[in-house]
Amino acid sequence: MSIKQVAIIGLGLLGGSVGLAVEEHADGISTKGYDRNPDVRARAVERGLVGTVCDTAAQAVSDADLVILCVPVGAMEAAAAEIGPYLKNSAIISDVGSSKESVAKALTKALPGHTIIPAHPVAGTEQSGPEAGFASLFTNRWCILTPPEGADEAAVAALSQFWTKLGAKVELMDAGHHDVVLAVTSHIPHLIAYTIVGTASDLEEVTRSEVIKYSAGGFRDFTRIAASDPVMWRDVFLNNKGAVLEVLGRFTEDLTALQRAIRSGDGDTLHDLFSRTRAIRREVIDQGQDDERPDFGRKDHS
Amino acid sequence: MSIKQVAIIGLGLLGGSVGLAVEEHADGISTKGYDRNPDVRARAVERGLVGTVCDTAAQAVSDADLVILCVPVGAMEAAAAEIGPYLKNSAIISDVGSSKESVAKALTKALPGHTIIPAHPVAGTEQSGPEAGFASLFTNRWCILTPPEGADEAAVAALSQFWTKLGAKVELMDAGHHDVVLAVTSHIPHLIAYTIVGTASDLEEVTRSEVIKYSAGGFRDFTRIAASDPVMWRDVFLNNKGAVLEVLGRFTEDLTALQRAIRSGDGDTLHDLFSRTRAIRREVIDQGQDDERPDFGRKDHS
Repeated sequence: MSIKQVAIIGLGLLGGSVGLAVEEHADGISTKGYDRNPDVRARAVERGLVGTVCDTAAQAVSDADLVILCVPVGAMEAAAAEIGPYLKNSAIISDVGSSKESVAKALTKALPGHTIIPAHPVAGTEQSGPEAGFASLFTNRWCILTPPEGADEAAVAALSQFWTKLGAKVELMDAGHHDVVLAVTSHIPHLIAYTIVGTASDLEEVTRSEVIKYSAGGFRDFTRIAASDPVMWRDVFLNNKGAVLEVLGRFTEDLTALQRAIRSGDGDTLHDLFSRTRAIRREVIDQGQDDERPDFGRKDHS
Repeated sequence: MSIKQVAIIGLGLLGGSVGLAVEEHADGISTKGYDRNPDVRARAVERGLVGTVCDTAAQAVSDADLVILCVPVGAMEAAAAEIGPYLKNSAIISDVGSSKESVAKALTKALPGHTIIPAHPVAGTEQSGPEAGFASLFTNRWCILTPPEGADEAAVAALSQFWTKLGAKVELMDAGHHDVVLAVTSHIPHLIAYTIVGTASDLEEVTRSEVIKYSAGGFRDFTRIAASDPVMWRDVFLNNKGAVLEVLGRFTEDLTALQRAIRSGDGDTLHDLFSRTRAIRREVIDQGQDDERPDFGRKDHS
């Protein structure tokens, strides 16, 4: 099974980056793209996000060996239903969504009988839209495939090879397990960041101006994540409810324990935790998953 | 009142950066420094963190016009008591601690009759120790002075001028208000980051290896803050207990409201918050308090 023609539905940060990465890293693969927003399509043409920007989803997918849905997870079912009648029988249908059980269910419902291999490249920035994509987004990042039981092995191999070409490292995982892992490493961090940024801007005792001015004390880090796309993230929380609520429960238990330690002046408990967490940072850096420079190498430290 | 000779007690990230910033930005001011750890003193000599590294705190402060205590806030009282007998009568005593009511109390107790002007430059990185300091740490950052009622105006002016020379913008504030503002913009963000990194590493369902591998989904940002100095942060929480617990209460209320929205599938509440927080990020960047490049300009996006 050989992937020669790829259709990208949705030309935001992820869709645009897939198109640019194919252009830069995957000789012999052509791309067509579609976005339901005509302004996005126009900008995609200007930036050359894909080889051909199509005016309908049907045109984009009709000769595709691989279709990648790059839309919010809540929009997957509708996007899949729209392309269904125009797909080649042999096409692999995949996506880049951050929750995988819900996406598998939506795609299976909309496209019965088709070869569906959901995927999630764990990569992104706080920016979104057709300006945001870039070719190296997936370099050295993990892409998790969650093939359903009995999935076509050749299709899984072809999709793995595709993501490897784009610079990613590929891992196969059960969709349910994916959803718990990502609740921990992505969804709850986003929920917490959105929350604290909201809390800070709503306090009566502290002005918004003060929050901004003194944000270098740590708060500014959270504002980056809390600037992420609102629709994408709304959909993630609604579509990974079970795992998110489970991990959130653990987090609030742990936070309550620290609250108690602060109230009772239990410095040892605080010190023990604060020492343990340092080692995790070291491992993240050692495994090439973050910039080792202080403060992520922000330019104000040049 | 003219500051010609500055003593820096504690030669870690903050003390070292003050010394290097004076050397680079403040012609005509000399520095002496002391750290109770002889290995740190030796490294301070090698890096040239201060003009003269002294073997005792007494030697460092005896001719100083300004003494800056750069030790964890829980160590302020002991450090102040140690230098008390050797201070010039005219010396200004200041610090860089992240909680100001507790520091004012500790310094007033240890150094009755002296001119005490607590200060807090809102700047830092996740690194610590004598390797971590650099001369531009305070550039374009705010330094908050919390002079007690009736403080010597000339001393406040001299200290303001000193921090301005180092590149900082100076603001005067009541110590109690400082402690609430910093609870929001620094202390609670650190507490949350430490907590989620701890939660993630303790889960049974998700391995530590998975947490590290997929950390680019957002989690890795939190590992940076959670790599901060454990002793410094233990002391901050123990010494700003009231404001930290108050702001933490607000945060957990807001988080509980979002939890309820997720459980009940209330997408509008999620979308409303996620849209509001984007504007805060924009202001942080517009006011020069963060790097505008996506993902803080991390090098894996080059």
